[in-house]
Amino acid sequence: MFLEKIKSPADVKALDIEGLKSLVAEMRATLIKKLSQTGGHTAPNLGFVETTVALHYVFDSPKDKIVYDVSHQSYSHKMLTGRAEAYLNPEKYWSITGYTEPKESEHDHFMVGHTSTSVSLAMGLATARDLLKEKGNVIAVIGDGSLSGGEAFEGLDNAGEYARNFIVVVNDNEMSIAENHGGLYKSLAELRATEGKSPNNYFRSLGFDYQYVADGNNVEALIAAFKSVKDSEHPVVIHVHTKKGKGLPWAEENPEGWHWAAPFNPETGVINWGSGESYGEILGQYLLQKIKSDSKVVVIHSAVPAAIGFHAGRRKEAGKQFIDVGIAEEHAVALASGLAKGGAKPIYTTHSTFIQRTYDQLSQDLCANNNPATLLITAAGADGMNDTTHLCIFDIPLLSNIPNLIYLCPTCVEELKCITDWAIEQTEHPVAIRVPNSVLHRTDVFDKEYGNQNVFKVEHRGSRVALLGLGDFYQRAVVAALELKKYGIDATLVNPRYASGVDVALLANLVADHDVIVTLENGVVAGGFGEKVAAACGANGMKVLVRGLAKEFYDKVPFNELCEKNRLTPQQIAEDVLQLLG
Amino acid sequence: MFLEKIKSPADVKALDIEGLKSLVAEMRATLIKKLSQTGGHTAPNLGFVETTVALHYVFDSPKDKIVYDVSHQSYSHKMLTGRAEAYLNPEKYWSITGYTEPKESEHDHFMVGHTSTSVSLAMGLATARDLLKEKGNVIAVIGDGSLSGGEAFEGLDNAGEYARNFIVVVNDNEMSIAENHGGLYKSLAELRATEGKSPNNYFRSLGFDYQYVADGNNVEALIAAFKSVKDSEHPVVIHVHTKKGKGLPWAEENPEGWHWAAPFNPETGVINWGSGESYGEILGQYLLQKIKSDSKVVVIHSAVPAAIGFHAGRRKEAGKQFIDVGIAEEHAVALASGLAKGGAKPIYTTHSTFIQRTYDQLSQDLCANNNPATLLITAAGADGMNDTTHLCIFDIPLLSNIPNLIYLCPTCVEELKCITDWAIEQTEHPVAIRVPNSVLHRTDVFDKEYGNQNVFKVEHRGSRVALLGLGDFYQRAVVAALELKKYGIDATLVNPRYASGVDVALLANLVADHDVIVTLENGVVAGGFGEKVAAACGANGMKVLVRGLAKEFYDKVPFNELCEKNRLTPQQIAEDVLQLLG
Repeated sequence: MFLEKIKSPADVKALDIEGLKSLVAEMRATLIKKLSQTGGHTAPNLGFVETTVALHYVFDSPKDKIVYDVSHQSYSHKMLTGRAEAYLNPEKYWSITGYTEPKESEHDHFMVGHTSTSVSLAMGLATARDLLKEKGNVIAVIGDGSLSGGEAFEGLDNAGEYARNFIVVVNDNEMSIAENHGGLYKSLAELRATEGKSPNNYFRSLGFDYQYVADGNNVEALIAAFKSVKDSEHPVVIHVHTKKGKGLPWAEENPEGWHWAAPFNPETGVINWGSGESYGEILGQYLLQKIKSDSKVVVIHSAVPAAIGFHAGRRKEAGKQFIDVGIAEEHAVALASGLAKGGAKPIYTTHSTFIQRTYDQLSQDLCANNNPATLLITAAGADGMNDTTHLCIFDIPLLSNIPNLIYLCPTCVEELKCITDWAIEQTEHPVAIRVPNSVLHRTDVFDKEYGNQNVFKVEHRGSRVALLGLGDFYQRAVVAALELKKYGIDATLVNPRYASGVDVALLANLVADHDVIVTLENGVVAGGFGEKVAAACGANGMKVLVRGLAKEFYDKVPFNELCEKNRLTPQQIAEDVLQLLG
Repeated sequence: MFLEKIKSPADVKALDIEGLKSLVAEMRATLIKKLSQTGGHTAPNLGFVETTVALHYVFDSPKDKIVYDVSHQSYSHKMLTGRAEAYLNPEKYWSITGYTEPKESEHDHFMVGHTSTSVSLAMGLATARDLLKEKGNVIAVIGDGSLSGGEAFEGLDNAGEYARNFIVVVNDNEMSIAENHGGLYKSLAELRATEGKSPNNYFRSLGFDYQYVADGNNVEALIAAFKSVKDSEHPVVIHVHTKKGKGLPWAEENPEGWHWAAPFNPETGVINWGSGESYGEILGQYLLQKIKSDSKVVVIHSAVPAAIGFHAGRRKEAGKQFIDVGIAEEHAVALASGLAKGGAKPIYTTHSTFIQRTYDQLSQDLCANNNPATLLITAAGADGMNDTTHLCIFDIPLLSNIPNLIYLCPTCVEELKCITDWAIEQTEHPVAIRVPNSVLHRTDVFDKEYGNQNVFKVEHRGSRVALLGLGDFYQRAVVAALELKKYGIDATLVNPRYASGVDVALLANLVADHDVIVTLENGVVAGGFGEKVAAACGANGMKVLVRGLAKEFYDKVPFNELCEKNRLTPQQIAEDVLQLLG
């Protein structure tokens, strides 16, 4: 066994070629065994084992600095930099994160989780190296899918004129999460077909020297390529053609399905996805139906189509009315604005954490032009993404403070559909809708009329205490009201619906027979909904308790724990209300 | 005279070549006369007259749709689409905006002012055209400078695989606002040098057909090129080489200085810039001094270096410690994070309206990694940019709700320097600093100690009313306090300094002998500073009056009018406080 003895990259360098090949085989087997039990980014890591071994064989990390894009392909890197135990020993499986993490190792330079950032971050390291007159190579690793993001282009464009050492390793596995989209991918295919000789070379057009490695799962070829550019004094791209999912037949055949996989049976290739309906799956059904019934409807997505139930079958059925723009969220928003201006009915769907990439496009391209596009934003939830880099808790401040944009938060499945129907057909404003990402809630208790902007819906009129539960936290308000009932308080229950404005008339009306207003929102309170309510009540003497998440980069905190920490359980809410009532 | 008779593009089509040439000469003379009196984007428009005439001669606007990037080069377009009077008649000079504006004309499809958006917006129109089975060409116009923005790449990459009509006109005047930066510009230069024959062709690498027009100020050559691609059924780039500033010798020689020019003397070329120091000029002096005294300091800018006083002379003096990344704000932020991680002391400076382009990079690349970069954000002000597309009023909600980021708002010149000194040297957090953009204020009344996060500075302790004036609105609080004094109220005066947090202890302390807190901020209140104060006071019974700008896309509203409209004059503040006190 080689892997057990790898305590640092120095131990990789001590091996001969046969040893390296054995190491690669062990690493791949170890990955499959571990991932079959824990789940994780499966196909991307299986394809990148040889490249990682070759990088650490040739370069001298951490003096030479390797920066991984998204860093969802960094499992092999972690194995070779003192963290093999976390893959070999089931008891240590959860001791490391799924992305690079500077707190874990001096070989990890950034916490990364979004795409298309590695070149820019690495350029910072290279520029600092040269300002500080230090030595060493800087290597940015980036996948072909990530090249579709604008930040990657900006980084490459700037790196292409850098007159010092800078190496970019392009891991071309012919895939984004789903298939690639964009004209660039035609020319990458030409480069693969011509062994790098095609004249249409994106990297050369940005000023890079260029080298192609046809078999990116051949460790000898990779070592030769990396050796040839080590210590080079100009920017160079090594274009490595790898096999996504290599070594796991089902993943090789269906890399999209295996990009991120839940635990699976390594003998049969059956992934245990769990069961039950999800908001994503319901949205997929719903949107496909809209597409079929109206040729003007067009659904836009940015490279994560499965998140809204657009697996390959539905994509095919939708035809030209489904557009995957690649990992190009900025383009997606501007495209939606143009489509709406041109008379179509565009719906852009993405996660809260990725809509962050589009603030200026939302503000300038969409909202300043007030074009009636619909945005479906998948929010945080019990089963939501909770890595620091994938938190879905910042969208309320981001979206609700842009003029002209209506941000609606449905409380249940039927309300989600009803609001989306309204948003698609109205022509007054851009409308964003927050899609819950928790257990499905179905109810018929909601208003079916929209357009009367910022009118909150009072579902039950009580007195003394009013609970305003935004979106999927409306149910939390309902349960908190039951708690308060135990103390003889008949609380008013409000479904605010609008995160982007406040029902000033209702708040004024509540003053007469209420002492406390509580706002509940499933996201950071800073800049969010409750603060708006507090400000609107600021001069009228009403006590307002603003409840949501404190502004913080939480790291894998389970949802229930997060709620408890922020005094968001119905019991805690009731306790705090009782204390305020005195 | 031809121009007077041009009421629509149909009148352009009726001219013969000699007529078109005369029209071009008249348009250029008209532009020079008008701009010498009103100021405006001078050099970009002078270079683009012939291309605009040729576009309207060949294509049939508005059935064929032309989308301009930034749209600061659209003056000729406006002249030819029914708005010539606004350029010919001095009384009508101010009847139109400086950018495309759908409210003005059916020939304008979007309100635009930021760069790099035209391809994506136009792709939306093209896709809608095809979904709705309509006819017509869609043409995106984009300058070479704008190509450096990631959104433009995302749009081009997606357009490059579009199997229907889509035309991109690249206006290559060899300049961004200042010189171009990036490897792409080497290959554009090669294309110019080889009349389009160089193999390193960025556009072809993204899937476009390609054609080069060597003399982009020759209307016949342009007409021939446009005719050859009209109604084409695949994506094509027409690369047009134009002369920025053409026809005005001083602008041809110094296109950076003439990109946007104040009114000037058309006989002597002397621009009337006005006089007096500005925060930008002071920053330029200050930053250059920092650079000279510390080799680790590096100033990053994204294509508007003059805004912080980095004219060509200072850029030269700064050497490698000044980096202009082009119009690549996303890269700038990630680069700053990498530089800080690598041990340098990066300072990224930009306007509030442009930091909008970097939310995700701020959150993920910088703040999740908690790297100690410094950001200098130029805010709204009396002399600030007030076009809808250039409002500098949304940065407080944008920046102050991101974890780990400290957002400080100095009140005067000395405090700005003092805070910046502290920010550059500390190593705990990323720090953003809001640079006032109003008349200079100099005072010695501020605390020189930082690091005690979210501790507000009480400058004067009175009673009953506390005025919290953030940043350059501290002076407004001072004057409002003088107003209140007339009514016997000795108001407490607070310089909050921190926009990103609240001094909870101070607020609790004020409850004892205060009835009203007033917050003042120079930006939208939605998601901003005052709402945080209101929420923090929500449960303690203090009345809080939150004052700032209502969430709205204001269009060229003079600053004093804006303040009055939002009840922000010291007199209005005093009136409202008195009413609350009862």
